[in-house]
Amino acid sequence: MAESSINLAIIGSGPAGITAGIYAARKNLSVRVFESAALGGQTSLAIFVENYPGTKRIRGSELMDQWAEHLKEFGVEVEEANGIKSVKKINGGFELVTDEKETVNAKAVLVVTGTENKKLGIPGEKELYGKGISYCANCDGPVYKGKKVAVIGGGNSGVTNGLFIEEIAAETMLIEFMPELNCDEVYLPKLEKSKIRVLKNTQALEVKGEERVQALKVKDRATGKESEIAVDGIFIYVGLEPRNRLAKELGCKLDKWGFIETSVEQASSVKGVFAAGDIVSGTLAQTVWAAASGARAALAAYDFIKQGK
Amino acid sequence: MAESSINLAIIGSGPAGITAGIYAARKNLSVRVFESAALGGQTSLAIFVENYPGTKRIRGSELMDQWAEHLKEFGVEVEEANGIKSVKKINGGFELVTDEKETVNAKAVLVVTGTENKKLGIPGEKELYGKGISYCANCDGPVYKGKKVAVIGGGNSGVTNGLFIEEIAAETMLIEFMPELNCDEVYLPKLEKSKIRVLKNTQALEVKGEERVQALKVKDRATGKESEIAVDGIFIYVGLEPRNRLAKELGCKLDKWGFIETSVEQASSVKGVFAAGDIVSGTLAQTVWAAASGARAALAAYDFIKQGK
Repeated sequence: MAESSINLAIIGSGPAGITAGIYAARKNLSVRVFESAALGGQTSLAIFVENYPGTKRIRGSELMDQWAEHLKEFGVEVEEANGIKSVKKINGGFELVTDEKETVNAKAVLVVTGTENKKLGIPGEKELYGKGISYCANCDGPVYKGKKVAVIGGGNSGVTNGLFIEEIAAETMLIEFMPELNCDEVYLPKLEKSKIRVLKNTQALEVKGEERVQALKVKDRATGKESEIAVDGIFIYVGLEPRNRLAKELGCKLDKWGFIETSVEQASSVKGVFAAGDIVSGTLAQTVWAAASGARAALAAYDFIKQGK
Repeated sequence: MAESSINLAIIGSGPAGITAGIYAARKNLSVRVFESAALGGQTSLAIFVENYPGTKRIRGSELMDQWAEHLKEFGVEVEEANGIKSVKKINGGFELVTDEKETVNAKAVLVVTGTENKKLGIPGEKELYGKGISYCANCDGPVYKGKKVAVIGGGNSGVTNGLFIEEIAAETMLIEFMPELNCDEVYLPKLEKSKIRVLKNTQALEVKGEERVQALKVKDRATGKESEIAVDGIFIYVGLEPRNRLAKELGCKLDKWGFIETSVEQASSVKGVFAAGDIVSGTLAQTVWAAASGARAALAAYDFIKQGK
């Protein structure tokens, strides 16, 4: 176990957290990276990442493993399955309690808790979660070999995960609320060539099923006609929402959607608390952007710790 | 030769330009990347890059070659030794003339012309440039095998290049104007272990020599005492200045140091002109940051081109 009194506590290990760890360690700060689950944040959930400069098409989890290896070169390891339960400001810094019930004092805190998948909020979604409803095709897709699957959401996440599911499932449909898909154009020809059935302008109304998902009730928004589609699995990709529990605990100013407002230097409204990556108001929600903001936050935290800036 | 009427002209091929190319191509924009010299910008001049997330210690030029390879996957090649001579706003876009005298029309322009090494502005510097004075140890260092070399500047560039030179030269000294070095702390033990002679609080006054550099005249700022140090080569790393000739031609608003002012989305004050990387006011001057700003600029250019935003 590392020392319990450190310079910088990084809460989260997505691209922003790992990059901040690299930058902080290179500045000789004592730093720990806490992660409530497995490392890599949203990037590690991506089937493939194609646009992180310098790295051709790669599984998201593999890319994040490379980053964690890089961080290790500087003597820092991501502490997986050891998140932060609580955090409060104390005299001269912050007191954090980890999931392993260790108390850690830190001079500065970097909140990189990212986002989690938004829920649709329709009947049956909560009840059948884990029983045919999933928010991660990468994790749960393979069990739908030869089955019928609906992917909800026509942005990049929905489309790329739909294309992944199509290679596994017998039938795949993609359901988008708006009249047009909102994904990068590079995916459109791939979608065309696939056997995915695309339902645009379609609202998901309810998930039906007893023990497991059996059908999805939808409405054609043009005609108002409702219908039920028999499916075995439903993957939901309708956006992300901020994981801001600790930011709230710290009293950070949030925007109206619950993302942390920061200065250009990634400082939050609370002195000594910095934020980066997808939890930040105005995030680009891209791996490279999260990394850059993590770098900037670590350098700002360094200035704060060393020069009281 | 690519079509002479395109969506987006990217001027520069450092981390920002290459990343913007990747993002623009994935959005199906027709895009060309113009480069007046060799690809890779400041990053390609770095002896080693240690902090680009996911890539352990690597030569800067090798890292940038990897990025250019990645860009090629999307059908775009950096046009080396084909910079932009002039650019002006015309009806419906911009007209650019390349070094190869081709006229290119583009709907939007991304200025990623970066920075170049600042000159000291002392007597002999200009006269002996290329005759013992250099701004790139990576390019010119190897010729000083067994010689005496002074590196001027104690920031990260000066120190890392000094450490590189020390492996080649017989004697290396590092000269810093301020009382303390301004490099990352990770380099201090390496510097200590090296045989580099560090002169802090020392001002470079004049470069002496007839055909070639023979000596550097310096002043000890504490005592005011002046002296001459016999050297064969001088490498100057005293900061960077913006390459803003084309930004000025376009009428972009610049900050007082000559960097381009942009919105959060990387839009300049001129509609249709975007900027990213080290030419931007407030740049972090880090590879990963330049890349992220290039990604954002490309996405903003896409919105501008497609939706007239």
